[in-house]
Amino acid sequence: MAKKLTSREKDYSQWYNELVQSADLAENSGVRGCMVIKPYGYAIWEKMQAELDKKFKETGHENAYFPLLIPKSYFSKEASHVDGFAKECAVVTHYRLKNDPDGKGVIVDPIAKLEEELIIRPTSETIIWETYRKWIQSYRDLPILINQWANVMRWEMRTRLFIRTSEFLWQEGHTAHATKKEAVEETEQMIDIYADFAKNFMAMPVVKGVKSASERFAGAEDTYTIEALMQDGKALQAGTSHFLGQNFAKAFDVKFATKEGKQEYVWASSWGVSTRLMGALIMTHSDDAGLVLPPKLAPYQVVIVPIYKGDEQLEAVSEVALKVKKELEGLGVSVKFDNRDTYKPGWKFAEYELKGVPLRLALGNRDLENGTIEVARRDTMEKETFQISEIGNKVVTLLDRIQDNLLTKAIKFKEENTHFATNYEEFKSLIKKGGFVYAHWDGTSETEEKIKQDTKATIRCIPEDAVLEDGVCVFSGKKSRRKVLFAKAY
Amino acid sequence: MAKKLTSREKDYSQWYNELVQSADLAENSGVRGCMVIKPYGYAIWEKMQAELDKKFKETGHENAYFPLLIPKSYFSKEASHVDGFAKECAVVTHYRLKNDPDGKGVIVDPIAKLEEELIIRPTSETIIWETYRKWIQSYRDLPILINQWANVMRWEMRTRLFIRTSEFLWQEGHTAHATKKEAVEETEQMIDIYADFAKNFMAMPVVKGVKSASERFAGAEDTYTIEALMQDGKALQAGTSHFLGQNFAKAFDVKFATKEGKQEYVWASSWGVSTRLMGALIMTHSDDAGLVLPPKLAPYQVVIVPIYKGDEQLEAVSEVALKVKKELEGLGVSVKFDNRDTYKPGWKFAEYELKGVPLRLALGNRDLENGTIEVARRDTMEKETFQISEIGNKVVTLLDRIQDNLLTKAIKFKEENTHFATNYEEFKSLIKKGGFVYAHWDGTSETEEKIKQDTKATIRCIPEDAVLEDGVCVFSGKKSRRKVLFAKAY
Repeated sequence: MAKKLTSREKDYSQWYNELVQSADLAENSGVRGCMVIKPYGYAIWEKMQAELDKKFKETGHENAYFPLLIPKSYFSKEASHVDGFAKECAVVTHYRLKNDPDGKGVIVDPIAKLEEELIIRPTSETIIWETYRKWIQSYRDLPILINQWANVMRWEMRTRLFIRTSEFLWQEGHTAHATKKEAVEETEQMIDIYADFAKNFMAMPVVKGVKSASERFAGAEDTYTIEALMQDGKALQAGTSHFLGQNFAKAFDVKFATKEGKQEYVWASSWGVSTRLMGALIMTHSDDAGLVLPPKLAPYQVVIVPIYKGDEQLEAVSEVALKVKKELEGLGVSVKFDNRDTYKPGWKFAEYELKGVPLRLALGNRDLENGTIEVARRDTMEKETFQISEIGNKVVTLLDRIQDNLLTKAIKFKEENTHFATNYEEFKSLIKKGGFVYAHWDGTSETEEKIKQDTKATIRCIPEDAVLEDGVCVFSGKKSRRKVLFAKAY
Repeated sequence: MAKKLTSREKDYSQWYNELVQSADLAENSGVRGCMVIKPYGYAIWEKMQAELDKKFKETGHENAYFPLLIPKSYFSKEASHVDGFAKECAVVTHYRLKNDPDGKGVIVDPIAKLEEELIIRPTSETIIWETYRKWIQSYRDLPILINQWANVMRWEMRTRLFIRTSEFLWQEGHTAHATKKEAVEETEQMIDIYADFAKNFMAMPVVKGVKSASERFAGAEDTYTIEALMQDGKALQAGTSHFLGQNFAKAFDVKFATKEGKQEYVWASSWGVSTRLMGALIMTHSDDAGLVLPPKLAPYQVVIVPIYKGDEQLEAVSEVALKVKKELEGLGVSVKFDNRDTYKPGWKFAEYELKGVPLRLALGNRDLENGTIEVARRDTMEKETFQISEIGNKVVTLLDRIQDNLLTKAIKFKEENTHFATNYEEFKSLIKKGGFVYAHWDGTSETEEKIKQDTKATIRCIPEDAVLEDGVCVFSGKKSRRKVLFAKAY
């Protein structure tokens, strides 16, 4: 039997680490900060990829691939970008090993030293804008709407599976436009796509907004973000979309001839989500028994477990189980039939609870006699017995209900853990309690920094739906025109 | 108008480079040996990926992801593997940059030196078998059937787009089995999948066989290969599948408890194809006018170009074109309607010829009057005019014919350029001429090496369908039991 997880109440962080590993999602590797994404975890990521990729293509984007390694000098071209990214990074300095004359291993060959060091991409703006310079001459070459699915590397000292790893998988969109208006519209369109995906596929409500200056992407004029609330009251930045202005066009000298024949700098956006979404998904829905998956992202939505004694019963049960499987698959439901005889039903029940399979169907000898089948919901743990003849419709309806229920529960949790602070004492006590805290802020980086020092809370975003009103900053007492969203964050 | 390509006859290599770049498939980047795969090229790769991924999953494989970076010491564990792979590789030695005190750029921070260097994966056997040790305890944990889609890096001195690049994209399957028999069957199953894919999707006939000892994968007991023949008479290794025996299990100490409770080493296979297939596709079918694509791998199978003067005609033509597009899409055909008014029809015709779109439909004012539409085949360059009412069936039939015709032509080319050498003089003159050359070989590495020195030809494989017969080696005159396949190769 699978061992029980530490409860969330006892140690949330421990619960998370145990869940990720025992539900076969990911594990640490022998390489510091780099994870192995196991097949079950990767299958969820593939479902996320497929849906996002479809949305990107529907909105006119194409995929492409740019080099993993970036010459060091490229980073120096955009001043704030180098500060934000080129510091904690993996640096390739040599291109050959040789046999160790003193041992049986291999050592770096000192003469095979690169003239210029290469950086493993932490993000690809620099190499992509170096390339776009060659691709863009005239307004006819615009817009360029490109996305890349890739691995990136940022040297992290404190890592956590999916949430913060040195290597992670992501997609990065990089677009080029003739006008500022178009580039801003693209930036906004992409954050909307992320928010829709979070809500309708991950069943995860988010607050959409714009980052304060100090939390902006290095090299951006504006960073749009979606912020989700985890069960432990911490915020998690789940996706960002950046309006880059003409910063990279200027840094890499990318100009185009307008219809009128003038030379102008190109406008840009970039946007991305990563395997971090896996962490967000886990910490939005899962419970002490393990993972809870929304049906739309489950590698298999239904598992059928046969209950039997001896080969004869197994054969009879299997025949019916396979019919049910076929019927469900015909309705677009993904089904696993687990007829392994190396594990007992009780072990399998615990295993699929841990793995968050939305519906578990159990079928035994008595069911065959009665024409029934037992269905267990993972989200509510409720069990019900149905006639086999009605199982198709029941399963389809239940999967929809589970998807809806997870979103409803997550919205309720977010609402119950969202508060408004009118003064700094109240603010501090709310932040300490955890959750989203809305409060007036005077708009200065100094106040933001002082609040962070004092409470560890950061401004997650200036929400897009913030109401314009007259107020005073909870910290400084200075004038403020809108409340912003504070929280402690991952 | 797009500039004309150098002809294949004049300079095959130049023709290839020009085609890859002007058909928007790929280009060199600012990083030595690393390419940018452009959207049109990447769309073809995505089609290859989708089909292969489907075949892998149908045969029970799951995808996963392992770290990009591998500790240097892992390579030393399998003696022949380190010789084959860990020498020409990208080595990460540092994890931080800092501002250059003497300039405005950044330099490597000398104190941020890694204790152990990390290698960018040239292939992942070592890190995967290090991981499998933790995953495998008993026969119940076997088989493990995992595939990974990833980027890899091998430091190449002489590179060519798609065919040989320092960074390339590929898939690598890594499987673990309880018995030798199962592992060998897996190895053979995967080379069969590759051969089927080459034939039925790429329209590329291949010779399937086993590598000689000196051409084996470093660490394999047997390497199965598919070898294709390019238009210039050179062979191209298009995919390999390796039976690894217990080599990696022993190197990484991966044992399992059998049903009987004994401890045994695990048996293994690994197999891969890469973006090199793009080069193979190009050099199998394309001509002096540009790329020729088999319909099953074309990003869009049909392009519709409107012929018009003025907005009124464009509107009338567009209405019909969009109806045709919709009808074709309903039949599962992918269609692009190019109504850009920034380019003339003649320019577009040349562009889509260069890009190898299987069918080009042209629709003008006169066509509207007659209810007709002009269809041009890319493979034969033939044009025909059809009634619009019958266009659906005609297009579907033509796409099938093009797919078949490309395979038939490629088979014919391969047959015409396959020869049998009975003595060494004949052998040398046939190799000089180019193509596949079958000849008896005495089975020794010495003879193989001497032939290579002498003629630049290598043994591509010992074909699986080789007939057992008594013969004498063309080089040494020693006994031989079967003819093997020689060629000069990419």
